[in-house]
Amino acid sequence: QAVDPLQVRSWAAACANCHGTNGRAQPGMPSLAGMPRDELLRSMLEYKNGVRPATIMHQLAKGYTDEQLAALAGYFAALPR
Amino acid sequence: QAVDPLQVRSWAAACANCHGTNGRAQPGMPSLAGMPRDELLRSMLEYKNGVRPATIMHQLAKGYTDEQLAALAGYFAALPR
Repeated sequence: QAVDPLQVRSWAAACANCHGTNGRAQPGMPSLAGMPRDELLRSMLEYKNGVRPATIMHQLAKGYTDEQLAALAGYFAALPR
Repeated sequence: QAVDPLQVRSWAAACANCHGTNGRAQPGMPSLAGMPRDELLRSMLEYKNGVRPATIMHQLAKGYTDEQLAALAGYFAALPR
């Protein structure tokens, strides 16, 4: 079932704290806006499954379902760089 | 069943990124070391259940089970201030 875009935006709000507003990060932190959707999703799934080292991304990713991660990947991929 | 202390420390490692090493934070961020266990646990459960506003704590807390949160609360409560 389609995910409510407002809902996705609320899930994505947490990311802004480190990745900047609208997915555009400060130097030193990866921007998310306009990144390929599959790349974003694969990274987050790798964090969630503990196969990708991280400071807090592994723990943050564990708080989302795989469906939420897919919706987030789509959300950031669609943002203008 | 008792939780492996090393396991708890690995769950707690993510917290250091914002709350400082050994639970002692920089000014402006709450320290966790030596805080009352029940207070720590209640806060994290409130974050997890969305009844306590947060920037990312609500999302971080969702990545832990209630048992893990209880173990974390005990871990930080036992650290020297």
